[in-house]
Amino acid sequence: MTSIAMIEAAADRLRGHARRTPLLTSPFLDELAGRRVLVKAECLQHTGSFKFRGAWSAISALPPETRPRGVIAFSSGNHAQGVAMAAHLHGVPAVIVMPSDAPRIKIDNTRELGAEVVLYDRATESREEIGAALAEERGLTLIKPYDDPQVIAGQGTTGLEIAEQAAELGVAQAQVLVPCGGGGLTSGIALALEARAPGMRVRPVEPEGFDDTARSLASGRIQHNDRLIGSICDAIITPAPGQVTFPILKRLCGPGLVVSEDDALHSIAQAFARLKVVAEPGGAVALAAALFHADQIEGEAVIAVISGGNVDTPLYRKALERFAP
Amino acid sequence: MTSIAMIEAAADRLRGHARRTPLLTSPFLDELAGRRVLVKAECLQHTGSFKFRGAWSAISALPPETRPRGVIAFSSGNHAQGVAMAAHLHGVPAVIVMPSDAPRIKIDNTRELGAEVVLYDRATESREEIGAALAEERGLTLIKPYDDPQVIAGQGTTGLEIAEQAAELGVAQAQVLVPCGGGGLTSGIALALEARAPGMRVRPVEPEGFDDTARSLASGRIQHNDRLIGSICDAIITPAPGQVTFPILKRLCGPGLVVSEDDALHSIAQAFARLKVVAEPGGAVALAAALFHADQIEGEAVIAVISGGNVDTPLYRKALERFAP
Repeated sequence: MTSIAMIEAAADRLRGHARRTPLLTSPFLDELAGRRVLVKAECLQHTGSFKFRGAWSAISALPPETRPRGVIAFSSGNHAQGVAMAAHLHGVPAVIVMPSDAPRIKIDNTRELGAEVVLYDRATESREEIGAALAEERGLTLIKPYDDPQVIAGQGTTGLEIAEQAAELGVAQAQVLVPCGGGGLTSGIALALEARAPGMRVRPVEPEGFDDTARSLASGRIQHNDRLIGSICDAIITPAPGQVTFPILKRLCGPGLVVSEDDALHSIAQAFARLKVVAEPGGAVALAAALFHADQIEGEAVIAVISGGNVDTPLYRKALERFAP
Repeated sequence: MTSIAMIEAAADRLRGHARRTPLLTSPFLDELAGRRVLVKAECLQHTGSFKFRGAWSAISALPPETRPRGVIAFSSGNHAQGVAMAAHLHGVPAVIVMPSDAPRIKIDNTRELGAEVVLYDRATESREEIGAALAEERGLTLIKPYDDPQVIAGQGTTGLEIAEQAAELGVAQAQVLVPCGGGGLTSGIALALEARAPGMRVRPVEPEGFDDTARSLASGRIQHNDRLIGSICDAIITPAPGQVTFPILKRLCGPGLVVSEDDALHSIAQAFARLKVVAEPGGAVALAAALFHADQIEGEAVIAVISGGNVDTPLYRKALERFAP
C-alpha cells in the first residue's frame, strides 16, 4: 500500500532524473474557464508522459540482487517508453512485449530508447505466456503499468510538485483534474495531496464511452468498460480501475468527469495556442473538463494535469485545423 | 550599459512573475545532433516568448513618478504581447501601436491582455509620429524592443537560468545558440554567461537572407538587411543589430550561424515530436542550427534557445506535415 512516506522516498530517488514539470497558466484559459486554471504540463516529462516517474520509481526500488537482471513490461504506448528509458538510464536490460501490429514509430522509439522489443501476434499468441517465459528464463521483473505500490508512489511525485507549485501561486484550495486510465497517476496524486495540500480534491477525468472509473466511483464497486478500442484517447483506456488503485480513488476522489472526443481535441488546440505545449487526446481530457465543463467544477481555481503528449501527427493536425483559435 | 548587477537585479524583480522555463533534453535530439542537446524552452514563458522578461524588467525599473502614467510600444508581435501583459500585471496602462493590417488574432490577443491598441495606416501614417503624440499627451514611457539596457537585463535573466540549469545537468562548456533579431536576447544571455558560465560561448542564429548580425559580426560593423519582409521567421527580422546591443555581441559572441526556412520548419517538427513544445519559425532557428548544422558547432554539448512559440496555425500544420518524424 502506497503511503506518503513512499511517495517522498520515490521523490528522493527521482531527484535529478525525472523532470520537475512546470505549472503553466494563461489569462486566455482563465477567461474561457471562468476561473483560474493551473496546468501541470506532464507532457514535458521524459519520454513525453508521466509514465517515466512510475517506471523510475519501480526500477530504482528493486533489490540489488534482482535489478541487474532487468525488467519486462507489456505495452505499446507511454508505459513502454517510460520503462525503456528508465531501465536504460539505470543500465539494466528492458524487454518490452508489444503486438506485432503496433505502429512502427512506437516500436522504433522504444528500441531507440534502449529496450529489446519482443513482438507477438495478437491473434495467435498470449503476451502473458511470452512474458512469463522470458521473465522466468532471464529473471526479469515485471513492471506493471499502474497496479503496483511503487509505480503509484512514482506517479504521486507529480502531486508533491502540484502542492508546492500551486502554493507558490497562492492556490491552496482547488479541484485537481487528472486524466484517468488504470488510476496510477490519479491515485498517486490523490495520496500526495491528501498529505501535502488537504484543501485540494482530485477528480478523475475520462472520455465518453470509456468511463469505467466514473461509474465505479458512483457505484462504489469496480465497473468495466464495454470495449477497449475505438477511442482517440487510447493512452488512458484500460479495462477497469485497478485492484490496488481503486480503493485509493474511492477513499479520496470526487466524482468522475466525462468529456467528449471533440472536447479533447479542442483542449489540444487550446494547449497549443495558449500554453505552447503538445498534448495527446487522452492527456488533454482533464484540461478539456476544466475549460468546457466548468459548471461541473467548484471553486475559484482549478488544476488540470496534461498527462502526456505522444500524439499521432495527423490527428494533431486535425485538432488544430478544427479547433485552434 | 547593462551589467551583470543589472541582470541580477532584474532577476530579483522578475522572481515570482516571469516563469523559470525548463531546460529540456531528448535522447532522439542528441542522436540527431551527434552531441548532447539542451533546449531552453522560452516558448513556455508568459505570452509565449522571452519578450515578457524584458518588458517586465523595463516597466518594473521605471521611477515611481512615471510608471503609473503607463507605457507605449510599437509592435505587432511578441514584444506587443509581452509589454501588454507586463503592464497589465503592474496595473499600469499600455498603448500598443500596430499597423491596421496586422493579423486580427494578434490585435485581439493584445487587447485581451489588457492593452489599448492604436491602429495606424502603414501607407499614409507614421507610427513614430502617432506614438510621440500619444506619449507626449499622456506621459507614456516608450518601451523599446531591444535597444534598452533594462530590456537587455530582463532578457539576460534567461542566461542566468541557463547557467544554473546546465550546471545541474553537468554541463559547463558549451556553445549557446540564440535566435537573433535586434540582439536583445542574445546580448543579455551573453552578458549573463560571461559572468556566470565563462565556459560557454553565445552564437547568434538567423534565417538565410536576413543575416544582418552574422555579417555585422564578420565585418566588425553594423550591417543592414536588404529587406524586412518575406520571411516566415518574422519574429526575429529587424533592420540591423542595435546600437546598444551590437557592441556587446561583438565583444562576446562567436560567429553567427545561418539556417534555411526548411531547417526552421524541420526544427519545429522535432520540437513537437521530441520535446512536446510549440516553436515558432523564428524561435526555432537555434535548435535548427544545433540539429542540422552540427559541423559548424564545437564541443560535446550544445545549448539552443527556443525563443518563442507564437506561430500561425496553418504554417505549423505545414511544418508537421512535411517534417514530423
